[in-house]
Amino acid sequence: MQDAMIDQVLAEVMKRVGNGAAAAPASSIPADLTQLTEFVGAGMGDTQGIVIANLDPQVHEILGFDPKYRSIGVIGGRTGAGPQLMAADEAIKATNTEIIMIEMPRDTKGGAGHGNLIVFGAEDVSDARRAVEVTLQTLPKYFGDVYGNDQGYTENQYSARASKVLNKAFGVPEGKAFGLILGAPAVIGMLMVDAAVKAADVEVLGCGTPKKNTSFSNEVFIWVTGDSGAVRQAVIAGREVGNKLLSAWGQEPKSAGTPYI
Amino acid sequence: MQDAMIDQVLAEVMKRVGNGAAAAPASSIPADLTQLTEFVGAGMGDTQGIVIANLDPQVHEILGFDPKYRSIGVIGGRTGAGPQLMAADEAIKATNTEIIMIEMPRDTKGGAGHGNLIVFGAEDVSDARRAVEVTLQTLPKYFGDVYGNDQGYTENQYSARASKVLNKAFGVPEGKAFGLILGAPAVIGMLMVDAAVKAADVEVLGCGTPKKNTSFSNEVFIWVTGDSGAVRQAVIAGREVGNKLLSAWGQEPKSAGTPYI
Amino acid sequence: MQDAMIDQVLAEVMKRVGNGAAAAPASSIPADLTQLTEFVGAGMGDTQGIVIANLDPQVHEILGFDPKYRSIGVIGGRTGAGPQLMAADEAIKATNTEIIMIEMPRDTKGGAGHGNLIVFGAEDVSDARRAVEVTLQTLPKYFGDVYGNDQGYTENQYSARASKVLNKAFGVPEGKAFGLILGAPAVIGMLMVDAAVKAADVEVLGCGTPKKNTSFSNEVFIWVTGDSGAVRQAVIAGREVGNKLLSAWGQEPKSAGTPYI
Repeated sequence: MQDAMIDQVLAEVMKRVGNGAAAAPASSIPADLTQLTEFVGAGMGDTQGIVIANLDPQVHEILGFDPKYRSIGVIGGRTGAGPQLMAADEAIKATNTEIIMIEMPRDTKGGAGHGNLIVFGAEDVSDARRAVEVTLQTLPKYFGDVYGNDQGYTENQYSARASKVLNKAFGVPEGKAFGLILGAPAVIGMLMVDAAVKAADVEVLGCGTPKKNTSFSNEVFIWVTGDSGAVRQAVIAGREVGNKLLSAWGQEPKSAGTPYI
Repeated sequence: MQDAMIDQVLAEVMKRVGNGAAAAPASSIPADLTQLTEFVGAGMGDTQGIVIANLDPQVHEILGFDPKYRSIGVIGGRTGAGPQLMAADEAIKATNTEIIMIEMPRDTKGGAGHGNLIVFGAEDVSDARRAVEVTLQTLPKYFGDVYGNDQGYTENQYSARASKVLNKAFGVPEGKAFGLILGAPAVIGMLMVDAAVKAADVEVLGCGTPKKNTSFSNEVFIWVTGDSGAVRQAVIAGREVGNKLLSAWGQEPKSAGTPYI
Repeated sequence: MQDAMIDQVLAEVMKRVGNGAAAAPASSIPADLTQLTEFVGAGMGDTQGIVIANLDPQVHEILGFDPKYRSIGVIGGRTGAGPQLMAADEAIKATNTEIIMIEMPRDTKGGAGHGNLIVFGAEDVSDARRAVEVTLQTLPKYFGDVYGNDQGYTENQYSARASKVLNKAFGVPEGKAFGLILGAPAVIGMLMVDAAVKAADVEVLGCGTPKKNTSFSNEVFIWVTGDSGAVRQAVIAGREVGNKLLSAWGQEPKSAGTPYI
């Protein structure tokens, strides 16, 4: 009985201060928000998607957007960079949009990593809206191989065919396989990337460390390409060893969704 | 009864881990602190103000301060940049001081934004002390149009006449109107800035994004000038739409004080 | 009775969201982790140490490590930079290793400061392992003069003879005395550094502020050298005044271990 209460309080507290991975229940969306035509939806990682049909020319100019993209779709959240990028990469395959901004704040609500800001440019508002919708629909899948506990997390992503978002964010050639092997805190990632490249014949395209290719996040990661089977194998090898190390503090890391790799 | 207990625990927890906007009650200041002549006061946002009558020349040199400012007043806090800058701008109008350092750490205690470090230089210690006192007294006002919930916040600031602090921090000409339209996470800010520039004829002076003019905060914002009525109108338009978007996660954003705009 | 329950919940919550300074009890280390030969141990500040006997050449290359260091030892944690650096400095005195990477993410789990990533290079795996072991064993000592409360902390470090880690991280000549005087939020540090240099005849080697020599942390600090007695005196003077200022928010700062200075 006391325990039940403590659990209840804890759940509430962790929700308020925690990683915010829960999607807003549709029923809780306030009435005046549904009247805001720019709002598209909210999702995991305290992520939200909006669309602006006719972006003001002053905003185009100050943010350096090409004026030909009259409409923009925007994805932004507190927690996660990989999941949102992977989902946006799906969205760009399905729509007539371009990716015109990718920025990664240092965030995760007190966690070790990034939040995200991703902007789609389109000539037609329906394209921009569709890109945001597809991103939000696809987002839960890419939280599936994010495993976390109170000390850190591993993030593992895999795509058989990278599209324009992954190309812009990571320089992976379009149409090639893509794998992300990432651990936080950084010490976890260090073992993961070594295990990954030893496990399969993959090409390392780049790396992130607290000072390199991150916004001072507490992460080490690599992204790789190559034969799609090899890339998948490398990601899995990194994930296995990373989740073991994470458990060293006494708590089993848990998937934030349903693993897909 | 159970609910009351849960609320009580939650209040305590949020106070300890939360945004720390509460001022320290005067009665709780320890005796040996009141004997520390450098301490001036504490305020919202875990902010504190101190004064150093004769700064050591080695500190002048290492921090690059002009030696003619023998005395410095220092404002620093965990949460907030805009409120402290606005309050310091009031203080500099009222005192014979100069602003010699403004730096914005990535902080807010796990939140999406900045903390602050602001240094006044003065030839006379009484001027430095007065600047710190005025800043602390004025600070609560400028938390009034900061609206937050567990996912993010909007920050809205307005001044009919910018002084030296806003000039140094944002490049707004002294004596001109100043407006700040800011949303966190960044996706919120994106809609706010578009709504603001559409609502009134204002001149955009600059912008902040996770990678530009911030310390990797999860924010998008612009600052504007122009006719004071127009500036005020732009700020209000941004605030309205930002607070609606924030509510999408199911929780109404609340003012951290009493709105003044 | 109610109070006891509230305390219990609070303790649990603070453990989950807090500064994570507690070491993992040995009994809680999962069985499959003990089979992972790379894992060495876990400690305060959510720190972990691992060793990689034969680092993959692709990882050497992407991280810019000299291939002659076939083995690496890695220390990484969420909370703390100074304690881990001090402990690693002890370790390098005791082993045949070199320091090949020091990076400081913006972390501390929502706190004001840094996490850490420190890599030892060795030609022999036993040397790398030993360096990690010594670091983890020595680590609790250097949390002893870290004093914190819910608003911030002071970090005070002292070494009579700096070795290669402190040389690489701070540029202090090997064999000379080293002192670190640091306060967070930054306003606390400002008074500490002034008090420190006034208290003893020391040479200031460098400083950190939110924008300088940090990863946007909310800290001000200096590091000093000179006669070892003077260095110690400067550190103590900074610590005294810093801890007084920290108490201004109503809560006495507490040592994270046993003070050693």
